[in-house]
Amino acid sequence: MKVLTEREIIRIITNRFARERSVPLGFGDDVSAIPLSSKNWIIVKTDMLVGSTDVPPGMTTQEVARKAVVATVSDFAAKGVRPIALMVSLGLPAPVKKKTVQDLARGLGQAAQEYRCKLIGGDTNQSNDLVIDVAGVGLADPKTLVRRTGAHPGEIVATTGLFGRPAAGLRILTANRKQDAAKYPSLVKAVRQPKARLAEGIILARSRVVSSSIDSSDGLAFSLHQIAEASKVGIDLHMIPIADEVARFAKERRLSSLELALYGGEEYELVITIKPNGFDELKKRVPSLTEIGIVEKESFGVLAHLEGKQIQIKERGWEHFA
Amino acid sequence: MKVLTEREIIRIITNRFARERSVPLGFGDDVSAIPLSSKNWIIVKTDMLVGSTDVPPGMTTQEVARKAVVATVSDFAAKGVRPIALMVSLGLPAPVKKKTVQDLARGLGQAAQEYRCKLIGGDTNQSNDLVIDVAGVGLADPKTLVRRTGAHPGEIVATTGLFGRPAAGLRILTANRKQDAAKYPSLVKAVRQPKARLAEGIILARSRVVSSSIDSSDGLAFSLHQIAEASKVGIDLHMIPIADEVARFAKERRLSSLELALYGGEEYELVITIKPNGFDELKKRVPSLTEIGIVEKESFGVLAHLEGKQIQIKERGWEHFA
Repeated sequence: MKVLTEREIIRIITNRFARERSVPLGFGDDVSAIPLSSKNWIIVKTDMLVGSTDVPPGMTTQEVARKAVVATVSDFAAKGVRPIALMVSLGLPAPVKKKTVQDLARGLGQAAQEYRCKLIGGDTNQSNDLVIDVAGVGLADPKTLVRRTGAHPGEIVATTGLFGRPAAGLRILTANRKQDAAKYPSLVKAVRQPKARLAEGIILARSRVVSSSIDSSDGLAFSLHQIAEASKVGIDLHMIPIADEVARFAKERRLSSLELALYGGEEYELVITIKPNGFDELKKRVPSLTEIGIVEKESFGVLAHLEGKQIQIKERGWEHFA
Repeated sequence: MKVLTEREIIRIITNRFARERSVPLGFGDDVSAIPLSSKNWIIVKTDMLVGSTDVPPGMTTQEVARKAVVATVSDFAAKGVRPIALMVSLGLPAPVKKKTVQDLARGLGQAAQEYRCKLIGGDTNQSNDLVIDVAGVGLADPKTLVRRTGAHPGEIVATTGLFGRPAAGLRILTANRKQDAAKYPSLVKAVRQPKARLAEGIILARSRVVSSSIDSSDGLAFSLHQIAEASKVGIDLHMIPIADEVARFAKERRLSSLELALYGGEEYELVITIKPNGFDELKKRVPSLTEIGIVEKESFGVLAHLEGKQIQIKERGWEHFA
């Protein structure tokens, strides 16, 4: 029996629905769009969090609910669009305790407040697995939407921050290593209390010098490949943005810090390309902006040149059914 | 340990989010709304189908996917709004076969075609339970939206059709009674291939004589109670709209046909109230329209007067965690 991976499942569905009708955005991008007029599109995104596969040990119910919203908001952030409203569908295993529902409501409310969007409705169901599906709705002028397809040769590849914390934190939580959790609080926090780069994403989109953007929820390597593929270009990295504490943790635990930073996932930074002379000005407004490489004409995928060595960055990342 | 019912879960969440901010519609109604202008609102609805609790034996994967869309479209139908676009979040138990995904895509595509809406994106996840969460997005002039709150004393209570088929069909499928399935194909079909009353709902909303509306997905009795409660009125029924074959099936199996028609659920008719002199004209355009009672001033809940006897209709229906 042929068993499918997540990408294969997505490909079958995408082929079925992207084919038959014109879809202005979506399937191949972070969000979907419904044109209202030439200047105003409804932007929609749904992101499902599943208890059995997306929640490591040690997370509270409130944190889980908040994170479900963060995942949806992060896709809006990548396109520079503020979500106005959220709809939340819940699947809850029976029996359901009052405290569980209160904690879910608190986490959802906390995230809605952080990102200034309203929770306006939803649906509640009984299921064998905890499911929190968050749909976000926003509005955007299509001209300001930063797609995955806009990268051009000569442009700068940058990220809104450093990588590897969630991958390292996940190892600490999964192995229940309390000493490491105390020693590296930022790694555990990156898993339990992630942040979406919404404020940064909106600044980047309005700057008009950002040519493409994606969030890194499937990992840095995969996100770079997605931009390279969608924009039909190659990406050449001169540095991998590894967080200091990830490097320390990796050294201590004899892990590859490159592996943690490139192939982790569940990370909500933005990966963008910037017009050649736009970086310095933008860096003043988004201080965490980190230059990591350059866009090349040849679509060779994603390479890195580190300490004189050329490395092929694999198209690999967080994947269900892997 | 206090264990919550679905209504109690919804109440906790609704109290948390309906309280703090003005919500123009939603929580207490079939759909939620985001005002764009005084004449144009974005209408959103999410409805989650869960394999372990919502799918009886005997349904094909294609039918299940189609039904997930029907459930969301039915809420739009109740408000007289056409959904423009659908987003579908999938949770699939591993391993996933190619045929499963193809059948899911077929069912989603079939429903999208039936109700003329586009599937524009979604999300795929691994989970322990089959989950199909369908978000619909539409647009409406708020003046044409038929709320649950508009029923007035003296108005006619009506439905778009007869009841009890899904409740009877579910018994046939659950008990795997092949003889009954062959003898009562319409009952089984009502479960496996339900239809949303979208065309009817749009006609009813445009007529301007329909004062309140709800879909009957939680059962006829519960829907009537919802209208009575939201509109602060009482409802007095002079007939229960039982489908003929449901009456025959009930008699044969010594079941209560009233029970099947009133407390079943998973039924996608519309339950509406109509201004006193509007029924006859509307009946010409929606032939399935069935007059079942009258709106009363006193908020006594829902009563029925049948064959000289007064019956109190209970506020009971399909409920998760029941």
